[in-house]
Amino acid sequence: MSGEFEFIERLTKLLAGPPAGQVWIGDDAAVLDGGQLLATDALVEGVHFDRAFCDLADVGWKALAVNASDIAAMGGTPLAAVAALVTPPGTGLADAVAGGLAQAAEALSCPLVGGDTTGGPALMISVAILGTSPTSGPVLRSGARPGDSIYLTGTLGMAGAALADLRAGRDPAPEALLRLNRPTPRLTEGRAAAAAAATAMIDVSDGLVADLRHICDASGVGATIIDGAVPVTGGTFGESPSVGGDDYELCFTAADPRAVETSFDDAGLTAPARIGLITARADLTLRLADGRDRRLCETGWEHQIG
Amino acid sequence: MSGEFEFIERLTKLLAGPPAGQVWIGDDAAVLDGGQLLATDALVEGVHFDRAFCDLADVGWKALAVNASDIAAMGGTPLAAVAALVTPPGTGLADAVAGGLAQAAEALSCPLVGGDTTGGPALMISVAILGTSPTSGPVLRSGARPGDSIYLTGTLGMAGAALADLRAGRDPAPEALLRLNRPTPRLTEGRAAAAAAATAMIDVSDGLVADLRHICDASGVGATIIDGAVPVTGGTFGESPSVGGDDYELCFTAADPRAVETSFDDAGLTAPARIGLITARADLTLRLADGRDRRLCETGWEHQIG
Repeated sequence: MSGEFEFIERLTKLLAGPPAGQVWIGDDAAVLDGGQLLATDALVEGVHFDRAFCDLADVGWKALAVNASDIAAMGGTPLAAVAALVTPPGTGLADAVAGGLAQAAEALSCPLVGGDTTGGPALMISVAILGTSPTSGPVLRSGARPGDSIYLTGTLGMAGAALADLRAGRDPAPEALLRLNRPTPRLTEGRAAAAAAATAMIDVSDGLVADLRHICDASGVGATIIDGAVPVTGGTFGESPSVGGDDYELCFTAADPRAVETSFDDAGLTAPARIGLITARADLTLRLADGRDRRLCETGWEHQIG
Repeated sequence: MSGEFEFIERLTKLLAGPPAGQVWIGDDAAVLDGGQLLATDALVEGVHFDRAFCDLADVGWKALAVNASDIAAMGGTPLAAVAALVTPPGTGLADAVAGGLAQAAEALSCPLVGGDTTGGPALMISVAILGTSPTSGPVLRSGARPGDSIYLTGTLGMAGAALADLRAGRDPAPEALLRLNRPTPRLTEGRAAAAAAATAMIDVSDGLVADLRHICDASGVGATIIDGAVPVTGGTFGESPSVGGDDYELCFTAADPRAVETSFDDAGLTAPARIGLITARADLTLRLADGRDRRLCETGWEHQIG
């Protein structure tokens, strides 16, 4: 649920909105009564994966992992998942995909409690996941405030580097290939961010700029990213601002850097990188090493500001 | 979730099973902690629908309705749903499908709280639904006992007749076409059955014999259907035992016929037809008008018994 369901958003505007305390369309997961979280994400062959570059168990793993990443982005904990699997007839792919689903279910402590399987023209898997919010409440996209620091867990670029290697016929580094095909949702990190009173959070599935923009749009704020502060494998962020799709790291905002440090330390986690600041001006900029600011867009940075 | 997810069932047998009070794979919906219900069902073009015979809004409606039917079959009430929609690129189908989804969400009081949309080689829609159990607990497939009566809501055959007409180039009756393309999940009926202490329940999505067999298998019992007692549009059950797929009526078992009558009457519903009896012998038979018993299989009845 990366914000691309705008047509449903248009339609639901015609219907009654959610009751107080609930959030429906527009965040990583919907927030229901009592803070329950519900999300869905589908993977389609040829769109989200290429069977030349992964095995079928990877597809099953990733289908559950990307859904759990939506729960992580709320600071939540997965409870259970269901899967709908569409496979081309007669190919016997279902068992292999289900094997990866079951591995992920065990690794993420998120039981696969039901499903549906059917024939179809291409391999597609859709997972829906139910989760619980942290006791402090779910971390939405809409709470970022000017002056908040922006944080990023882990590093960006490994999944993209692995895909580039595969497409070029090179062998990717084993760690990078795992990042691409067996992503680990940052569930512990998401809970640590929530415990540090994170004001907004999203998982980086489309790329850092695109995903941070969702936070800014939902919060009515802007952001400045400090180029040298973004951990990017094999380069700088300014050289490749579209980096980070498929990495499934978390980007969050928080007002108190000390609380973030303490919370991650208490959880036995590496401190997240502090990569920038939320601003009042509603645009996204990149501060280069020379101190100049550039306006960021999803595919690069556009032109000098000021 | 019509029991076709056997490969997941095989895999989950290798993993830890559900804690007491929960039911995972193998019923219409999974039963989670506190009686919450979770289910998923997908519709694929060319498998579950033919765009020559329905409009795109019908596809959206049906995707939510068949999921709500799984909640109905537990005696439950839908809480919320999410949808993953795959559409061929550049065709702009998504809005039309979403329109039908939104109509069903309003009609069934089941808000669509989130979703995912992506391109793909064919039109596919997968819905997952969350629901609550009745206060008496969910009605599983596994509770039928010898001597219980078997009940069926509504009549069978209309959806199938409409599809046959469409395939033959005839205009179906408007009511039959609605049954095929805009099925109504029997939510009120499901709750009435639960209130009458139904011992087992399933929705008739594959056909009465196939679905009643799921109850028998899960309960370790058999069943005898009384031919003349099954309401079938334009024929008798014995003439077409595969009837009932896509009708989304409910088949349930209960020990006390008076409780069933009272419960449906209290809910302002037509009494369900009492179509047979659960037996101790683990097979399905059909009692014909002449008193002879025939063994039933999904495609017909096989041979004379006794």
